[in-house]
Amino acid sequence: MNTIDTMAVKSIRFLAADAINKAKSGHPGLPIGSAPMAYTLWKQMKHNPANPSWQGRDRFILSAGHASMLEYALLHLFGYGVTIEDIKNFRQWGSPTPGHPEYRHTAGVEATSGPLGQGVAMAVGMAMAEARMSAHFNREGYPVVDNYTYALCGDGCLQEGVASEAASFAGTQKLGKLILFYDRNYITIEGRIETTFAEDVNGRFAAYGWHVQELPCGEDMDAIAKAIEAAKAEKDKPSMIIVNTQIAYGTPKQGKASAHGEPLGEEATAAMREFYQWDYAPFDVPAEVYAYFDELKKGYAAEEAEYNKMFDGYKSAYPELYAEWQQWHDDALPEALLKDERLTAADKPAATRATGGNALNVIAEYMPNLFGGSADLAPSNKSELKGRAYFSHEDRDGANVHFGIREFAMAAICNGIMLYGGLRAYCATFMVFSDYLKPAMRMAALMKLPVIYILTHDSIGVGEDGPTHQPIEHLASIRAIPGAALFRPADMKETAGCYIAALMGDKPAAMALTRQNLPQYAETSVEGAMKGGYVMKDCEKPDVILIATGSEVELAMKAADALAEKGKAAKVVSMPCMELFEEQSEEYRESVLPSAVRARVAVEAGSSMCWYKYVGLDGETVCIDHFGASAPAGVLFKEFGFTVENVVAVAERAMK
Amino acid sequence: MNTIDTMAVKSIRFLAADAINKAKSGHPGLPIGSAPMAYTLWKQMKHNPANPSWQGRDRFILSAGHASMLEYALLHLFGYGVTIEDIKNFRQWGSPTPGHPEYRHTAGVEATSGPLGQGVAMAVGMAMAEARMSAHFNREGYPVVDNYTYALCGDGCLQEGVASEAASFAGTQKLGKLILFYDRNYITIEGRIETTFAEDVNGRFAAYGWHVQELPCGEDMDAIAKAIEAAKAEKDKPSMIIVNTQIAYGTPKQGKASAHGEPLGEEATAAMREFYQWDYAPFDVPAEVYAYFDELKKGYAAEEAEYNKMFDGYKSAYPELYAEWQQWHDDALPEALLKDERLTAADKPAATRATGGNALNVIAEYMPNLFGGSADLAPSNKSELKGRAYFSHEDRDGANVHFGIREFAMAAICNGIMLYGGLRAYCATFMVFSDYLKPAMRMAALMKLPVIYILTHDSIGVGEDGPTHQPIEHLASIRAIPGAALFRPADMKETAGCYIAALMGDKPAAMALTRQNLPQYAETSVEGAMKGGYVMKDCEKPDVILIATGSEVELAMKAADALAEKGKAAKVVSMPCMELFEEQSEEYRESVLPSAVRARVAVEAGSSMCWYKYVGLDGETVCIDHFGASAPAGVLFKEFGFTVENVVAVAERAMK
Repeated sequence: MNTIDTMAVKSIRFLAADAINKAKSGHPGLPIGSAPMAYTLWKQMKHNPANPSWQGRDRFILSAGHASMLEYALLHLFGYGVTIEDIKNFRQWGSPTPGHPEYRHTAGVEATSGPLGQGVAMAVGMAMAEARMSAHFNREGYPVVDNYTYALCGDGCLQEGVASEAASFAGTQKLGKLILFYDRNYITIEGRIETTFAEDVNGRFAAYGWHVQELPCGEDMDAIAKAIEAAKAEKDKPSMIIVNTQIAYGTPKQGKASAHGEPLGEEATAAMREFYQWDYAPFDVPAEVYAYFDELKKGYAAEEAEYNKMFDGYKSAYPELYAEWQQWHDDALPEALLKDERLTAADKPAATRATGGNALNVIAEYMPNLFGGSADLAPSNKSELKGRAYFSHEDRDGANVHFGIREFAMAAICNGIMLYGGLRAYCATFMVFSDYLKPAMRMAALMKLPVIYILTHDSIGVGEDGPTHQPIEHLASIRAIPGAALFRPADMKETAGCYIAALMGDKPAAMALTRQNLPQYAETSVEGAMKGGYVMKDCEKPDVILIATGSEVELAMKAADALAEKGKAAKVVSMPCMELFEEQSEEYRESVLPSAVRARVAVEAGSSMCWYKYVGLDGETVCIDHFGASAPAGVLFKEFGFTVENVVAVAERAMK
Repeated sequence: MNTIDTMAVKSIRFLAADAINKAKSGHPGLPIGSAPMAYTLWKQMKHNPANPSWQGRDRFILSAGHASMLEYALLHLFGYGVTIEDIKNFRQWGSPTPGHPEYRHTAGVEATSGPLGQGVAMAVGMAMAEARMSAHFNREGYPVVDNYTYALCGDGCLQEGVASEAASFAGTQKLGKLILFYDRNYITIEGRIETTFAEDVNGRFAAYGWHVQELPCGEDMDAIAKAIEAAKAEKDKPSMIIVNTQIAYGTPKQGKASAHGEPLGEEATAAMREFYQWDYAPFDVPAEVYAYFDELKKGYAAEEAEYNKMFDGYKSAYPELYAEWQQWHDDALPEALLKDERLTAADKPAATRATGGNALNVIAEYMPNLFGGSADLAPSNKSELKGRAYFSHEDRDGANVHFGIREFAMAAICNGIMLYGGLRAYCATFMVFSDYLKPAMRMAALMKLPVIYILTHDSIGVGEDGPTHQPIEHLASIRAIPGAALFRPADMKETAGCYIAALMGDKPAAMALTRQNLPQYAETSVEGAMKGGYVMKDCEKPDVILIATGSEVELAMKAADALAEKGKAAKVVSMPCMELFEEQSEEYRESVLPSAVRARVAVEAGSSMCWYKYVGLDGETVCIDHFGASAPAGVLFKEFGFTVENVVAVAERAMK
């Protein structure tokens, strides 16, 4: 490393310090402390800032997302399009330089990060995706998929359980092209980590099966470069490069917790200028630094050009593989899938986890790039892709994944898989454990990643396993996530409609599926389900509207019949997806739920909270706002009021 | 170990197998495989089945809760009151033998378990509680608090991140009286763990700072007993005893995944009887086994009698400490606390995180048994107990805890602290990260543990940190949890009312507190807040009702004034806690929200979902159902419609 490298690093440090001062908000400590490793890493990375979406690029995730100014400074200097004006607008309304890096918002940002630990898991997902894609597509002389995945994390990420889960998984899977930088500055907000985090991280990661290197000083860029080479050379183990640093190195707040999350301020920044002998004004980057990056950019562009040439050769040599490549990178659904009768040809009662498993397997025939699995519940979730191998070190093209009992990492890994490109990720667990993975589902919603979550055992229908395993509030919780969609189909046709709608959308999609058998209805339809809510049983002048989802549709239909016998006209609405229903025209929604009819009853074996939007102050709910219990499912439904008699009684109350 | 021990173990194995067969549901593999270690452990444990709440007892948590029949068989044989009839009713409606062990439901069950990993973290909490209580109360010759905490987990628990977080924390804290049995049978539902969990668990726990022993065979009860002695002798490190077992040992399903979660069935159970040479009918326990347990019980009772004698001496020798002991074990709030003016004496605008921090510190003077801390955000959460030490190996009576960046373990540890008895647990983080800890909050609700969660930065008021750090759906999500309560006070008086109500209840209580300053109102009241919702600004014939919480109360009050200028009478309701409001009489609720007034507007910077219950089909909401953004808070409130003008406009729409 030479003088210009040092100047580049200083430029990063000062852009961070000055932008955070100007915003009066931000986290200067980590950007300043880790600038040398981040710069050394980016300099050697395979990427082309002129084309941030070049498939062949190495991936980088700033798992310690609060150090966003580090990434923005890099994006600026390497030429990704972040301007000095943007950096001056750090953390301001509408700027491409928000408080934490945001995917789809700033070119070059590979993942939204900030919630600690998830970046590590997303990097694991990206490395898995690279492993599968390269095994599937590469041919002798044509390494069309061949990149490393890097992540940078701090002490915080490594205390989070999700990072532990992901690291254990990565070690088991021997993801050799995953390289994690650990900026160990020994400081978190409450002080020195010895008081909270006295463990031997090196030993822990070695126990996970990782290749671990430790560098004593964050300033030695030659040592950092050598460590990267050694990490790349280790093909069968993920690598961790521990770099011991000083938070806010070279400032009066060096080594102090106060450097973590507040601006350095004028005085400390002046002292920092002194220490680094940096005479440039805030936001002023030396011309020779820009010139040096211009040189670097030529090299990056040349590398992509070479790749593109190779890729052209690949197209000619392997036209069929290339066609497949295009198919894998095309989000549109194959027309034939929509017409495949195996999605709808039900002839007997079935659990929606079974019709869901069937749908998934039919879809997989059309979408060979499906990639997913369960947190150790595949036989219960019916989530296995039949006849397909399991992803492992021995078979990198396996489409099934044994995620292990690690729901949170599983979902965050799926985000990483989707971010990589070319693959469609799904994961599965019991619905009650959607709680464990919810933080990653939220991130999927924020990034608009249509990950599919197969959440079976979706109510007290779980039965004997009892209240710890029976979802109550989970339907409401998922519906409350902005930009996510919750699907709860009533039978096979609705299951198909829900899957198709989910695959066509840009929302993370939770499939709430039953453990227990449900009837197949003549009155349901794929098209209805795809509208989110539709009239399943109509009547001219409804006295009452019964709205139900999933397993409770049966109850609503039977209650309508019972009401008819009592001379009351009940309209039944099936509402498998509130989010889709809300996207329909007002006219359509009015046709389903005429505003004049105020006697309305929602029937769903879950929290009532989400139903008042549709039943209002005059309506009623047959829901469950308390915990379940351990007993056979049939007993529970009866004890908790999910009977035809009770729905009829509640409907009569609503009509009063 | 002698023949009768072997017979006792066989009795456990067959009670489990036969009960699960009869229920046609359950998990026989682990109970059968781990019966020798569990029996050996319970036999030597300090406990008295005749008095399950004896303070001096060792604690035991079955973290692998699906092995519930193991625990029920032990509870039956040791004489905790679980009868053979109860065991025959395993997993049936109303029985004390539900699918997973449930605290408060079955005498002798120390914690509800089932959601994997959490039992390990709760055990850590219990061991912390023991450490603090013993440091505080014990005197030379009077070890009134002196017990070990045991937990039994399987491969599943150790894959979960929450167990990793808790184990790292326990190692840092050197919790020497925590002993974790790891039943390593190498089998999970999807098969052999090598495919998902190839890590070196021994090395990992050694890296956490644990004392690790490994036994090659689960059948050697002498070796197990010796390992327990060695674990107890290690005072400065938590201990893990790894016992390599065969799932469903001695049955045709031994070593198979199918033994995990389904009944063995008649045939396999017959073969099991053959293998163990067990000629007893289902549910038939040999008389000599019962007789042996009767002998054991005498010893246990004698041990408690000796403790009680010692404790009587303690009362006489240390009457002041004993008075304190009684105070710590009394859930009632001190009268004087309710009248302490420091809770309400606000004279200037303040963030509710600040008034909350003040309330916490005032309360701590009356409740010295408060025990808690933050997931590394204490300075931001204002959650530190001032002038009190931090809990550590060097100071076991510290009331503050550095939990580290481990939200989930933090909350599960708080459950363990509360379960132990004598302490009041609280924890803190940013509200958006309530997602990370939610599975433990759900368990607190299920167990009726009034843990307090200090969740600051409760809206887009977070500002610059952006959407990853701005809660949207979280208010709704927490409100949806059965048996939990969400408090969102508007000023200092409401903060006091919310804290007092939370401390008086049996619900886990989430305090949603602002980052930004809020005004202090003349119109708020402690009493009003304690009713959950109340009229803050009344009018004779309201044209519209504005309902608001927390930071949006200001907006509602100003909008009411603006409406008044336009000749419209607006009533303002502050609703700091929906759950408490729902518990008020119908008459009171009607007085606050008269059903005749249908023009209603809810104003809250969170998901609208939870508000339709109060505004119905005719009302409106000024809420936020999309993600936030990175910018100064004031800009965000304006951009997202949280302005007086917009609330007025929406109210006018509602009045049409």
